[in-house]
Amino acid sequence: MKRFEKHIFICENKRPEGHPRGCCSEKNSPDVRELFKKRIKELGLNITVRANSAGCLDACEHGVTVVIYPEQIWYGKVTVTDVEEIIQEHIVKNIPVERLKIIDEKFNRDEIKI
Amino acid sequence: MKRFEKHIFICENKRPEGHPRGCCSEKNSPDVRELFKKRIKELGLNITVRANSAGCLDACEHGVTVVIYPEQIWYGKVTVTDVEEIIQEHIVKNIPVERLKIIDEKFNRDEIKI
Repeated sequence: MKRFEKHIFICENKRPEGHPRGCCSEKNSPDVRELFKKRIKELGLNITVRANSAGCLDACEHGVTVVIYPEQIWYGKVTVTDVEEIIQEHIVKNIPVERLKIIDEKFNRDEIKI
Repeated sequence: MKRFEKHIFICENKRPEGHPRGCCSEKNSPDVRELFKKRIKELGLNITVRANSAGCLDACEHGVTVVIYPEQIWYGKVTVTDVEEIIQEHIVKNIPVERLKIIDEKFNRDEIKI
């Protein structure tokens, strides 16, 4: 067993206003990270689960980006309203949330169905 | 195959000066992260390897902390002089650098020999 069973990284990169790639911070990723942290603690999961801020995860085009290790599942366009579902399904039940996965062969490529 | 074969997270948490737990930023973790990033690019590894800043990884007592996924190997007291060895051994050859691993059962517990 490793230090964390699930380690959640939320991109909080901040670019200057008007940058063509945008950034996760301007799309409220700090609120997403705060809510992950708060709920993980409230649910008593914080011994084995951690939510961390991360620098640019290079998925800027996919909205607020969250990657969960060790399985490296990438989620895009995550909002505060998605946090509880990710926790209850992915973190607690170990079932990734299909509707939030980034659909891009560069990311969840094991998941691409042809 | 996932987006990144190796994903390196370097703690860049910053606490107020004099805080009893200290922090990684005051121990030059931003320089460690910059060097990882620079060398990964120079070596042409940046398609499959990424070095990211992370918020507090909760290993403050172990000096500048680096965790590498997907294997979740934890390194402590990392300095800029250690970066090349981590890249050449762990990232390129897939052999973790034993001398830099955090010796603490909370972290690399698979590695603890009794």
